[in-house]
Amino acid sequence: MLSKNRIKYIRSLEMKKYRKAEKAFLAEGNKLVNDLLGHFSCKLLIATAQWLEAHPLLLAQETIEVSAEELARASLLKTPQEVLAVFELPSYTYDDSLPGHSLCLALDDVQDPGNLGTIIRIADWFGIEDIFCSQGTADAFNPKTVQATMGALARVKLHYCDLKEFIRVQTERNVPVFGTFLDGKNIYSQELSAQGVIIMGNEGNGVCKEIEALVSQKLLIPNYPQGKDTSESLNVAVATAIVCAEFRRRPS
Amino acid sequence: MLSKNRIKYIRSLEMKKYRKAEKAFLAEGNKLVNDLLGHFSCKLLIATAQWLEAHPLLLAQETIEVSAEELARASLLKTPQEVLAVFELPSYTYDDSLPGHSLCLALDDVQDPGNLGTIIRIADWFGIEDIFCSQGTADAFNPKTVQATMGALARVKLHYCDLKEFIRVQTERNVPVFGTFLDGKNIYSQELSAQGVIIMGNEGNGVCKEIEALVSQKLLIPNYPQGKDTSESLNVAVATAIVCAEFRRRPS
Repeated sequence: MLSKNRIKYIRSLEMKKYRKAEKAFLAEGNKLVNDLLGHFSCKLLIATAQWLEAHPLLLAQETIEVSAEELARASLLKTPQEVLAVFELPSYTYDDSLPGHSLCLALDDVQDPGNLGTIIRIADWFGIEDIFCSQGTADAFNPKTVQATMGALARVKLHYCDLKEFIRVQTERNVPVFGTFLDGKNIYSQELSAQGVIIMGNEGNGVCKEIEALVSQKLLIPNYPQGKDTSESLNVAVATAIVCAEFRRRPS
Repeated sequence: MLSKNRIKYIRSLEMKKYRKAEKAFLAEGNKLVNDLLGHFSCKLLIATAQWLEAHPLLLAQETIEVSAEELARASLLKTPQEVLAVFELPSYTYDDSLPGHSLCLALDDVQDPGNLGTIIRIADWFGIEDIFCSQGTADAFNPKTVQATMGALARVKLHYCDLKEFIRVQTERNVPVFGTFLDGKNIYSQELSAQGVIIMGNEGNGVCKEIEALVSQKLLIPNYPQGKDTSESLNVAVATAIVCAEFRRRPS
C-alpha cells in the first residue's frame, strides 16, 4: 500500500531540488531497475507481486508490494511499468588528469534531458567512462535522462564542474581537445587519439566561444553530397555518436 | 483574433485521424516554418505582428495576426514560438526501382515520433532522399516528428508501404539490403554501396524475422573495447546515424 506522502515523495524526484535534498533519484522499468540495482544503493523498491516473485534476491532498504494501479499513481511514465525504484545519488570524485590517459566526453550546456541520456548510452557503448559537464548541462539524474540511458548510467560517471577551467587545464597539459565545428577539418582525414576530451555543445548555440578557443583539433562531420548547402545540422546526440564511432573505429 | 474553433482545429492536428481528414499538418517556430514554406502549400499561417513584419513576402492561403498569448493557446509546444503554420499534406509517389540506383532507408515499425524525426534529419544530412516505412511506423507528420526534423521533412520523402513486399521485390532484383544485427559483420570491414536499402527496426524488437531473412548484408556496429558485454544497445536513431555516416564516408 502506497501512502499519499510516498507518492508525493516519489513524484517530487522529478525536480532537481528535491533530488538534491533527498540525495535520491528515480528509475522505472524492469531492465533499467535491474541494471541499476547492482551499482547504486536502493532506498526504496516498489513493485507488483508478480515482479517481486520473479526477482526474489533483491537488496533494497525497503520494499513495498503494490497493485499495478497503485504503481501507476506514483509513476512518471506515460506507460507505467511493473517496478519503480528510488536509488541513492552517487557522489563521484575525479581528477583533472583523467583525459591524459583515457578518452572522455565533455558537454557544454546540453539542455535536453533526452539528448543527455542518449549521449550517456553512446558513451557506454563506446567505452567512455567519464563525462565532464558544465554546470548548465541538464542533470543526469533527471528521470527523463535516467530512462533514456537504458542502464548506461550504471557504467558511466558524470562530473559537473567549471568546464572552462577544466578544459583550460587540459590545454595547458597538451591533452588534445576535440570538437565538431562547421569550419573544422574532415574527421575522416584527421589523426584521432585514444586519450583526450571530445567536447559537444548546446543544442542551439554549440560550444561557447571561450571553450572553442581552447579546442586543439576542430573536426567536421562531412555531409553528402559534398558541397551541399549546410544550413541544416545534426542533433547533438547524433553528432556525438558519429564522432565516438570514428574515435573507436576498429575494422576486424 | 483566433476563434475557439480555429484553436480546436489546429490542436486537433496532433492526431493522425484529423491530419488525414483535413489533409493537413502543423509546424511551429521560425526556422521550421521558413524551411517548409518553400516546399509545402501553406493553408494557414498564424504569427505575431512582429514576425509578419519581418517576413513580408509569404505565400499562405490565409494569414492571421495574433498576440503571443493567443498563439500560445493554439500551440502544442511547451515553449510556444512566434509563428505556427498549417500545411497541406503532400502525396508522394514512388517506384520500386528507386533503391536500384540510389541509397534509401527503410524503417520497420519505428515507434517513437522523436526518433523518426531525428532519422529524417540524419537522412537529409547524408543525402538520402527516400525513406520507406512499414505501416506500423510512426507518422512523419506527427507534430513531434515534424519539430524533430528541423526542416529536413522538406527534402526527404517518406513512403508508407507494405514493407515486407517492398523488400522482397528488392531482393528479387538483387538490390542489396543492409541492416544492423548483433550477429552481423563488422561494418568497417564490409563493402558498402551507393545503392540499396538500409533497414532499421523497431526500438524494442528490431527488424521482424521475415524481413531479417531477406537482408543480404548483416552489419554490426562494433562496441568498445572489443569483447565487452553487449547486453547494452544503441538507440535506433543513433545506429542509423553511424551506419549512414559510414555509407557516405568520404575522407577529403
